[in-house]
Amino acid sequence: MSGPAAPVLLAGQWRQSQDGSGANGAHAFQADDPDSGEAFGTAYPISGERDLETAIASACAVVDELAAADPAAIVDFLERYADAIEANRESLAALAQRETGLPVSPRFLGAEIPRTCGQLRLAAEAARSHAWTLPTIDTRNGLRAWLAPLGKPVLVLGPGNFPFAFNAISGSDFASALVARTPVIAKAHPGHPGTSEQLARLAHEALVASGLPAASVQMLYQLPEALGLRAAGDARIGAVAFTGSRAAGVALKRAADAAGVLFYGELSSINPVLMLPGALAARAETLAQELLSSCTLGAGQFCTNPGLVLVPEGNDGDVFVDTARRGFAEAPEGLLLSRGGQRHLRAAVEALIAAGATPLAGGGVASGGGFRCRPVLLSVDGERFLAAADALQREAFGPVTLLVRVRDPAQMDAIIRTLEGQLTGTIYLAEDGSDADLWRQLAPPLRAKVGRLIANRMPTGVAVSAAMNHGGPWPSASHPGFSSVGMPGAIRRFAALHSYDQVPDALLPAPLRNRNPGRVPRLVDGSWTDRDLEMPE
Amino acid sequence: MSGPAAPVLLAGQWRQSQDGSGANGAHAFQADDPDSGEAFGTAYPISGERDLETAIASACAVVDELAAADPAAIVDFLERYADAIEANRESLAALAQRETGLPVSPRFLGAEIPRTCGQLRLAAEAARSHAWTLPTIDTRNGLRAWLAPLGKPVLVLGPGNFPFAFNAISGSDFASALVARTPVIAKAHPGHPGTSEQLARLAHEALVASGLPAASVQMLYQLPEALGLRAAGDARIGAVAFTGSRAAGVALKRAADAAGVLFYGELSSINPVLMLPGALAARAETLAQELLSSCTLGAGQFCTNPGLVLVPEGNDGDVFVDTARRGFAEAPEGLLLSRGGQRHLRAAVEALIAAGATPLAGGGVASGGGFRCRPVLLSVDGERFLAAADALQREAFGPVTLLVRVRDPAQMDAIIRTLEGQLTGTIYLAEDGSDADLWRQLAPPLRAKVGRLIANRMPTGVAVSAAMNHGGPWPSASHPGFSSVGMPGAIRRFAALHSYDQVPDALLPAPLRNRNPGRVPRLVDGSWTDRDLEMPE
Repeated sequence: MSGPAAPVLLAGQWRQSQDGSGANGAHAFQADDPDSGEAFGTAYPISGERDLETAIASACAVVDELAAADPAAIVDFLERYADAIEANRESLAALAQRETGLPVSPRFLGAEIPRTCGQLRLAAEAARSHAWTLPTIDTRNGLRAWLAPLGKPVLVLGPGNFPFAFNAISGSDFASALVARTPVIAKAHPGHPGTSEQLARLAHEALVASGLPAASVQMLYQLPEALGLRAAGDARIGAVAFTGSRAAGVALKRAADAAGVLFYGELSSINPVLMLPGALAARAETLAQELLSSCTLGAGQFCTNPGLVLVPEGNDGDVFVDTARRGFAEAPEGLLLSRGGQRHLRAAVEALIAAGATPLAGGGVASGGGFRCRPVLLSVDGERFLAAADALQREAFGPVTLLVRVRDPAQMDAIIRTLEGQLTGTIYLAEDGSDADLWRQLAPPLRAKVGRLIANRMPTGVAVSAAMNHGGPWPSASHPGFSSVGMPGAIRRFAALHSYDQVPDALLPAPLRNRNPGRVPRLVDGSWTDRDLEMPE
Repeated sequence: MSGPAAPVLLAGQWRQSQDGSGANGAHAFQADDPDSGEAFGTAYPISGERDLETAIASACAVVDELAAADPAAIVDFLERYADAIEANRESLAALAQRETGLPVSPRFLGAEIPRTCGQLRLAAEAARSHAWTLPTIDTRNGLRAWLAPLGKPVLVLGPGNFPFAFNAISGSDFASALVARTPVIAKAHPGHPGTSEQLARLAHEALVASGLPAASVQMLYQLPEALGLRAAGDARIGAVAFTGSRAAGVALKRAADAAGVLFYGELSSINPVLMLPGALAARAETLAQELLSSCTLGAGQFCTNPGLVLVPEGNDGDVFVDTARRGFAEAPEGLLLSRGGQRHLRAAVEALIAAGATPLAGGGVASGGGFRCRPVLLSVDGERFLAAADALQREAFGPVTLLVRVRDPAQMDAIIRTLEGQLTGTIYLAEDGSDADLWRQLAPPLRAKVGRLIANRMPTGVAVSAAMNHGGPWPSASHPGFSSVGMPGAIRRFAALHSYDQVPDALLPAPLRNRNPGRVPRLVDGSWTDRDLEMPE
């Protein structure tokens, strides 16, 4: 590692970190290559107090200008940025592959980059339509309200497992905050600094071209932990958006809460899957294959990875388990994102075994170097699970699934009731309707524990949709009423409710005036309409 | 104080407190009569660990049954309850007057009780229409979502200043949680235990008649402070709704946050009012009268009391100030709600004077006994305000207004920018349009600080409306995106987002199915419609 560290994007320009030392210092880092386990490439600065202060002060300085910006400029920015990512997708994918070990294809070129660009374009559409603002008019009381920009910057901390779709500089949190016309301070994940740098360069160019305030988007590569907590608890920040580990999320939430800063976090989930008897009778082997594919996709490093599968005892369940065991045993090694992730995964599997789970397949030492791992299938019976439910629902972030062999529906129900809040819950049921009564018995308790209830498909795969919930009850997420993915809901996390009382028509924001040339859907005296209001101004 | 303490409403029945001692013990209290300052009437128990545990366990036991209840039963309960309050309004108003010192008429019979019944009926309407659930359907991705019951009980802590409209057993938080089909544990305010008891009796009767689970509504009169904090931080609770003092709210929020419990609080506000020159030139004396009326209404004990008025220097401003001074000097004494409120008010006025404010009228010792006070008008110049902005924006909960004499619009702007988050901000402007440019300059910074921006009327008076915001940026409230008053928004605080992924039509909640016989407005593929979906089931 030599030469000056890469610049940071601060206060509207690329500049040297005021804190990160230039060469060979303790204040810079490199990406690791998961394949070799070796650090490589550019040095990236670890920012300190001075960079952070510049970022917060610069963001605050443009809050008002950005809030007053023409939404057409936001649209322009988001669409230019999406186009630029698309135009550079090959080089971006190659760099991200080197930094994360995830494959260029199909993962990046076939899925994640198109999804990221699509999400930015959906965000642009939301900015154009204003529908996320839920304009509400009460003509009798002279009151009008809508959701407006939060009025303070948003600090976004991205995860390591999606270098594009959830990147702090290109993901849903980023796009949502911009649609809400709120400046973003992005704290990139240190696992893919080069990818983040390239994205930030494209974002910055698009921003300049769109005419939005240049400090609307800033990015730091890394902050020491204590400084990250200080940033989250800085009352000049309006909201913190976080996707990552439970430990980090809980600490950031505590810091934000104490300062009255909103915290939106997506923290952890083991995504229980229930196999009902009719489904197993019809297609046990197919379902075992589905589980294997879902659990090993991206080396299982998904928030919605199926980590817990409830399988009835008996023949059909045995066929499912046998097929899954063979599949896991034969599955190729996967590459994990980081050395720390590899260490955590090992510790989590050991803890599950210590709590009573029996290894059925996989695990052990992977051949070759780098951050390799073997998929792991574990099993435990229902009684044992109930006796150690806390320890046995520990998240293992990687290709690890714990099967629970369940005696009867009552035991399945009891197990569901021990679970913490989850992002997803899945029920596989027979197509012939024979499991419908069991669904009616087991879906309600599962429903109460999860953000998204799924039928007959694995939880991996999170569509960017208005009807998505990528969130759930605590501790899977910090607020059960909001999703971090899906417009317009995700945008509303970064909004303040603005009510106007007796304000003359000409002084109202355009979407609340009597005339509605933009045909924004508005709730007028209790009914949705996009028409003009016929009343004196 | 003798005889057994009044029963508490726990686990579906009226029963003796398991903690509060029966007679003359430290574990019971009486209401104070603000007129005499003397305690009177029934002894009410101070609940302890056993009552609290019973309340939480009983509420949790009915969560599922209530969530699955037919909304028609919720409608029935809310309407029966409203009818019963109305039928008993005379006796309720007389009791509330004795306990709070607020007048039977016009306050209770003319305003607060009709408002409370109207709010319960609006809540019933919201339960009937399902519109609060924002059903959202994405046919392409097979995803459907809506806002559903939180899945855990709500703890409601009511304030002392609205014994009906904000009572924990009859106010907006109570009604909103019930519409969301979520059990309520009400912690009544100890200032009006008898009124709360009578309301709870009516609520309980209506509940039994409606067939809803009897433990859906429970009420305790008082909890020791430490136990209140423990309740707010109990992970079995889904949300805490609080209206009251900033100190208590901050402590409860900290406890709730630490446990992942949602906290919705309405904490404090001084409700800045800007007088623009054109408005003063046209009607300085009338505006001074409006200020006096608003500030002394209910002895100023409103969350939206105008505590800070910015008045330009010069002749018109002088006329306004002189008129206000005479009005405050001649205003009758008011009755405060409690001895503690009287003590806090005195301390707050002394602190404002110590920070540089000059008393213009009122204050001093009130004649007679009880919790009497004289309205207080204070003044300070803009420069002085800016030099001690933190100390001079301290809330004085009562009939107290601080006038700030402002040199020019730039100084007015600077003062606005020093303010904390507020529930409301008001601008008086000329009818002839001569203040419009000043509005355009000053409204944006004020807008950013407040939940509700008002033109040409005083902030007291909070309409129950879909377009209301009775909330605002921290620390006036805990989440700037939600209002504690106004359906349907207030209901959504107690909801979890439930997404359904590929779930067969027959297994979906009724409002998400293809057929929509209830004509619920739904966002289908981006457009609002109440029609059936034409697609295979």
